[in-house]
Amino acid sequence: MRKVYVVGVGFTKIGRFFDKGLRELFAEAAIKALDDIGGENVQALVVGNMMSSSLGEQDNLGAVLADYAGLGGIPAFKVEAACGSGGVAVYTGYSLVASGLFDIVMVGGVEKQTEYPTRIVSKGLAQASDAEYELFYGISFTGLNALVMRKYMETYGISRDEMSVWPVLMHKNASKNPYAQLPFEVTIEQVSNSMLIADPIRLLDSSPIGDGAAALVLASEKYARKLSDTPVEIAGVGLATDHIYIAYRDDLLKLKATIDASKVAYRMAKVEPSQIDVVEEHDAFTILGYMNLEDLGFSERGKTPKEIAEGRFHPGDKPTVNPSGGLKARGHPVGATGVYQVAEVAMQLRGDYPGVKVNGEIGLAQSIGGLGTTVSVIILRR
Amino acid sequence: MRKVYVVGVGFTKIGRFFDKGLRELFAEAAIKALDDIGGENVQALVVGNMMSSSLGEQDNLGAVLADYAGLGGIPAFKVEAACGSGGVAVYTGYSLVASGLFDIVMVGGVEKQTEYPTRIVSKGLAQASDAEYELFYGISFTGLNALVMRKYMETYGISRDEMSVWPVLMHKNASKNPYAQLPFEVTIEQVSNSMLIADPIRLLDSSPIGDGAAALVLASEKYARKLSDTPVEIAGVGLATDHIYIAYRDDLLKLKATIDASKVAYRMAKVEPSQIDVVEEHDAFTILGYMNLEDLGFSERGKTPKEIAEGRFHPGDKPTVNPSGGLKARGHPVGATGVYQVAEVAMQLRGDYPGVKVNGEIGLAQSIGGLGTTVSVIILRR
Repeated sequence: MRKVYVVGVGFTKIGRFFDKGLRELFAEAAIKALDDIGGENVQALVVGNMMSSSLGEQDNLGAVLADYAGLGGIPAFKVEAACGSGGVAVYTGYSLVASGLFDIVMVGGVEKQTEYPTRIVSKGLAQASDAEYELFYGISFTGLNALVMRKYMETYGISRDEMSVWPVLMHKNASKNPYAQLPFEVTIEQVSNSMLIADPIRLLDSSPIGDGAAALVLASEKYARKLSDTPVEIAGVGLATDHIYIAYRDDLLKLKATIDASKVAYRMAKVEPSQIDVVEEHDAFTILGYMNLEDLGFSERGKTPKEIAEGRFHPGDKPTVNPSGGLKARGHPVGATGVYQVAEVAMQLRGDYPGVKVNGEIGLAQSIGGLGTTVSVIILRR
Repeated sequence: MRKVYVVGVGFTKIGRFFDKGLRELFAEAAIKALDDIGGENVQALVVGNMMSSSLGEQDNLGAVLADYAGLGGIPAFKVEAACGSGGVAVYTGYSLVASGLFDIVMVGGVEKQTEYPTRIVSKGLAQASDAEYELFYGISFTGLNALVMRKYMETYGISRDEMSVWPVLMHKNASKNPYAQLPFEVTIEQVSNSMLIADPIRLLDSSPIGDGAAALVLASEKYARKLSDTPVEIAGVGLATDHIYIAYRDDLLKLKATIDASKVAYRMAKVEPSQIDVVEEHDAFTILGYMNLEDLGFSERGKTPKEIAEGRFHPGDKPTVNPSGGLKARGHPVGATGVYQVAEVAMQLRGDYPGVKVNGEIGLAQSIGGLGTTVSVIILRR
C-alpha cells in the first residue's frame, strides 16, 4: 500500500457564526490548508458532514464546497457517519491516495448548527441513533449517553464529583487554545452543580453546539516532501461499526467499535498504546472521555476518573489527552470534529500547534459516530 | 494500482413498498449479492443514499445497514452526492479495494421515497440544487431541468413529438425488465400529451418516484476468480464536479462534469466511445437522456432525438443504451440508481441480465448528482 502523509492543515475558530454559512466556513479552513502547502492545487475533495441534509437543505455538499472554495471541477463528495463523519472522511481520503487514484487530496469537515433552534439541532443530532427503535420513542442523544453514564457510575462506584474531573481538565487545556469554543476554566463544583440536562448528564458534561470547519491536505510519498518540510505519516487507520440499537449490545460500558478499530490501526502502525504521545479522542460527554481511554487501551475499566484526578493524561504525561480541550471545550462542530482532531495531532507532531504543546512522535485520533456505532482510529507518526 | 472486479450483484424490484423500510430493502439486495458470491464474508460496506437524513430521520446509515444485513461490525459508511450517490459509492468502494485496505467490499445503494407526501419528496430532491441560490427562491429540480429542455428544443429546433422518442424507447426496454418500476410501453402521442409538470417537461418525460436497493461485491484480482466464474473488471473510473448554481455555467446544453469524468474513465480504461457495447446512463428527464449521449461522445449535439427515431441506440445497436429502461422506466431510487446501473452493466457483460440482452465486452455506467453537478463514469470490461 502506498504511504500517505498529512502535508497541510487549516481550521476555523469554533463558535456561533451567524454571518457564516457552510460554504464560507469551509472556504476559510480550505484556504488555510492550501496556504500551508504553498498554494499547490489539490486533485480531489472528501467532505465529512452530518447535518447539511437534515438542517441545511443542502445535498451534493462535496461539489458545493469544492466550487465555493475555488477548487475547480475536481472530484468531490460527502461522507456521512453521524458525529464520526470527519474521521470517516480522513479514512476515505487516505484510501483515495493509497489507491494511487490521486497524489494530493483535500479532506474537509464542516458543520453549521447555531442558526437553528436548539430543539431542531437536538433532533438532528438524535438521527445518529436508531430512527426506528430509539429516536422514534423520543429519547435524545444526550438521554442515551445518560443511561451509559449512570451505569458506569453505579458499576464502578464513582461519585458525581469524581466524574467531574474530565470537564475540568478539558476546559483547562482549551483555555490555551485560540480556536476553542469554550476557552475558560471551570471547577469541580461548577461542573457538579451545572444545569441537569438528562440525569446524570449536566450542562458542563456536554460538548457545546457550535459551527466550524477543518481541512487537511493528504499526499503520497512522492509529493509529501515537495509540499511540506514536516510531513506527518498516516501510519495506521482503523474503522469499525457496532449495533446502532444499544439494547442489542452485550456490554454498555465498552464501545466495541473503538476496540475493533484501534486494534486494526495499532497493528497497521505497528505500535502499542504505551508508545502514543498524544491523543485526541471523542469526548462528546464526560462519560465518553473516560470510556474512550479504556477502550483504546490507555487505562483500566472504571479507574480513569481517579487516574485523571491524580494527574494522569494531563499535559506533560504520556499520552497527553485532548490538549485541544476535546469536544467538551475545544468544541464539537459535528462532522468537522474528526478532521480537527487529525489536524491538531499532526500539528503537535510537527511542532506548530498553537495551544497546549506535546513533544512527541506518535499521535492518535479517535472519532465516534453515534453512541459508539461507527468509530475511526487514525495513528500519525512524525 | 490494484485491479478491481465486480464479482457479485443483487437488486430489488423498484416500486412502492409500504411494508419495507431502508433496512429491509437493503438487506434484500445485499443477501442476493452475497448469494452471488457463495455466501463469502465481505470486509467493508460503502452505501450510496441521498435522503435518509432529510426524509428518513436516519443518519449513520452505513452502520445501520451493515448491522441489519448481518454483516457484523465491519467498516461501513454512507457517501452522498445527491442523485449521484450510488455512482460515488461505487467509486469509493473501488478505491477501498484498489488501495489494498480490503480485498472484498460491498457497495450498496438504497432509497425510500414512497411513504412521504410528494411535496416532501420534491423538496428533498430539490436539495440536489443550490440551497442558497436556487432552492431558496422556490424552483424545483424539475423546474431546473425544464429550463435546459426548453433551451435544447429552441437551440436545435426540435419539436415536442421529436423529443418524445426517448421515453418511448425506455418504456419499451423496461417492458422486458422484471425489476422495472414502469414495465409498460407508451406511444409518442401519450408522452407528448401527458400531464405538464414544469413546461416543457411532462409526466412521461420524468423518472418516477420509487423505492429500491442494489448491492455489488467488489474484489481484488486475487479474490475475483475465487468468488466468481465471470468476474467483470472495473477498467476505468472518473468523477468530476461543476458549479452547482447553473447560472454560473458557460453552456447549459453541456454537462461539463460528464465530459470531464468520461475523459478520465476512457483514458484509464484505454477505450474510445466507439468501443462501448452497452451504456446505462442517468436519464432523470428526457432532456438528460439526449444530453448524456452527447456529453459521453456517442452522438452529435442536437442530433440525438432524430438518431434515436431512426433506430440508433436501440437493442441490437452499438452501444445499446439503457436496456434496463433507464431512470425513466426501470425507475430511479435515487441513491441506489448508480449501483443498479453498474450491476446491470456487469450482468450484461457476464451474460445473465434478465431483460433486454446485449452481447458485448465493454460497458459504461454514468450517474449524475444534481443537474450535472457531480458525475461519475464507470467503465466495465468482461
